[in-house]
Amino acid sequence: MFNFTYYNPTKIVFGRGTIAELPQLLPEKARVLMLYGGGSIKRNGVYDQVCAALMKRKFSEFSGIEPNPRYETCLKAVAQIKDKGSDFLLAVGGGSVIDATKFIAAAARYKGKDPWQLMFDWSLVPADTLPLGCVLTLPATGSEMNQGAVISREETQEKLVLHSPYLYPRFSILDPETTYSLPKRQTANGIVDAFVHVTEQYLTFPADAPLQDRQAEAILLTLIEEGPKALRRPRNYAVRANLMWCATQALNGLIGCGVPQDWATHLIGHELTALYGIDHAQSLAVVLPGVLHHQLKRKKAKLLQYAERVWKLSRGIANVRAVKAIEKTEQFFRSLGVGTRLSDYKIPAEAAELAAARLARRRARLGEHEDLTGKEIAEILRSRV
Amino acid sequence: MFNFTYYNPTKIVFGRGTIAELPQLLPEKARVLMLYGGGSIKRNGVYDQVCAALMKRKFSEFSGIEPNPRYETCLKAVAQIKDKGSDFLLAVGGGSVIDATKFIAAAARYKGKDPWQLMFDWSLVPADTLPLGCVLTLPATGSEMNQGAVISREETQEKLVLHSPYLYPRFSILDPETTYSLPKRQTANGIVDAFVHVTEQYLTFPADAPLQDRQAEAILLTLIEEGPKALRRPRNYAVRANLMWCATQALNGLIGCGVPQDWATHLIGHELTALYGIDHAQSLAVVLPGVLHHQLKRKKAKLLQYAERVWKLSRGIANVRAVKAIEKTEQFFRSLGVGTRLSDYKIPAEAAELAAARLARRRARLGEHEDLTGKEIAEILRSRV
Repeated sequence: MFNFTYYNPTKIVFGRGTIAELPQLLPEKARVLMLYGGGSIKRNGVYDQVCAALMKRKFSEFSGIEPNPRYETCLKAVAQIKDKGSDFLLAVGGGSVIDATKFIAAAARYKGKDPWQLMFDWSLVPADTLPLGCVLTLPATGSEMNQGAVISREETQEKLVLHSPYLYPRFSILDPETTYSLPKRQTANGIVDAFVHVTEQYLTFPADAPLQDRQAEAILLTLIEEGPKALRRPRNYAVRANLMWCATQALNGLIGCGVPQDWATHLIGHELTALYGIDHAQSLAVVLPGVLHHQLKRKKAKLLQYAERVWKLSRGIANVRAVKAIEKTEQFFRSLGVGTRLSDYKIPAEAAELAAARLARRRARLGEHEDLTGKEIAEILRSRV
Repeated sequence: MFNFTYYNPTKIVFGRGTIAELPQLLPEKARVLMLYGGGSIKRNGVYDQVCAALMKRKFSEFSGIEPNPRYETCLKAVAQIKDKGSDFLLAVGGGSVIDATKFIAAAARYKGKDPWQLMFDWSLVPADTLPLGCVLTLPATGSEMNQGAVISREETQEKLVLHSPYLYPRFSILDPETTYSLPKRQTANGIVDAFVHVTEQYLTFPADAPLQDRQAEAILLTLIEEGPKALRRPRNYAVRANLMWCATQALNGLIGCGVPQDWATHLIGHELTALYGIDHAQSLAVVLPGVLHHQLKRKKAKLLQYAERVWKLSRGIANVRAVKAIEKTEQFFRSLGVGTRLSDYKIPAEAAELAAARLARRRARLGEHEDLTGKEIAEILRSRV
């Protein structure tokens, strides 16, 4: 096991009816800015629940945060905060809204000229970043209980990651009932996203960390079991609750303690989203099988463990079992309705060279060995046409 | 899944050589009081490491905290804190030292006359309880990452539990090398303690919480795998690291999220320790099989899952499998050298009535159904002669 530090101060308030607890979670006298996306929370009743809970509070609103939230949109929110003097941000939505809110919280207190610099130097995130809380409505990214955010910039077609301990939400309310009305595509995307968060921290090389391995497998097995049920029975509370807790646990730092991490799939996937606008989870479903096949030799020990414990493949030649486990993964994504090939999204074959060149230009060295450069990235993507 | 709140702000700093990070973890200018036990930290070098890390700091010491730490000892520490003006407590040791430090931290700021009242009304724990940090040297109780403490009072032969969100350590340093020199008995006790922490949150009744179940099984399987290795190879880093992380994860609140909890074994065990002075883990090893046999019918669904997933017992009549799983558990404890019968500790049969009467007097209603009273407790203990 490697040395590690684990710190996660986000308070999770989980279950039916918990939005009503908002008044006790918000600091007294906070001037709250509620941030949300395109209006689905108005259709599914979450907006009304939040307003009812905030009844006796003064609060203002900022809406229109898009999927793959944009820097340009965030800057508008920052201007509104400075104008209104808001001092607590309440994100109501999925990972995009929460990620945007994190960036906005930091940018609102950033003293430099160009807040985009935060993405390149995380130490610039101000210690007095605005506090934030969340009402989660889409289990997927884990942003509700971690210190990360991903922001896209239209002007430069960049999609970059921000990390800082100042970005942990103070609290996150997770009411599974808020996810009953999610479209199938978003439910499926969330399952794939959580699944790949786990594999990024699990499918690397053995590091004498059997507990972390089993904690990772616990999430994978539960996603495989509960995911298809959620598509069939979208209003089943237990199923929705289990998916929601899986997604949070997949990326709150715990399973990554003391083990090697990959993240190549995410970083390559971000380029596909930046270039072609496909959903984040779609990009992961395309890239992951490619990374695993390409790195089969070096990931073999963990792939075999994955094959046996997650897919119950314990017989036959080792190489065949490893390949079968990758195929099972791809089949699982497809069974949820998430395409796993570039052609499923009408992305041209030239995407391979284009995405690889962009990462090479940023001198990316991806994977747990930090040695996947432009050449390997292009190979991986060419295999996903 | 039941509704739940999860909040755990303790920062874990894990790995070889991490005691050297103490200066960065302590607040600047804190007047530190270092608390420890009987002197094992002086023999194994931990005391020297801590002193070296604190070199440039002013700090004072309080030693002599005993196993099953006593109220009477804690009061002496409180007097010393008031005398010296210490404002940060550093616990260096195992669960007893950490538990005592938590009580001391609260008692030092308690305005009432009699700090023992804190044990009966947890809401009395002051919000300005002294901050504390830990250097853990004995993985077992999980106290390094939770809000609980267990304190004994000699005068009244009481052993009681205290809980408060103000009692979370600010940080805990977990260096597995500090556990190399543990006597076999303490290593084995730690394994049993962590194991029973898990079963108290797992062997109840199904609550539609497959992730929490698997997270619990992950710890049990790892303890069964690594525990015996630690007794054979006490200086194996990976094994010590895995046990240490298992013990922390067993009682930091995570696996208990949204599921029923039992704790009968602990509360009955506390009486045995209070009355006869046996080690905490010894008391658990005696009581757990009794509780499981007595409650077999109501715990059957989870016992069968435990039999299959943890002990790989998937064939045969259900009742037989459930009984076998309990027997396997008892055998596991005995294989570590921890006795599982009252007679192993020369405790007389009358202990059953004595302990049951004490709990009945406090109107205890134990177990996940809160209905084990004096009668059932006596039955359970009579089966453990």
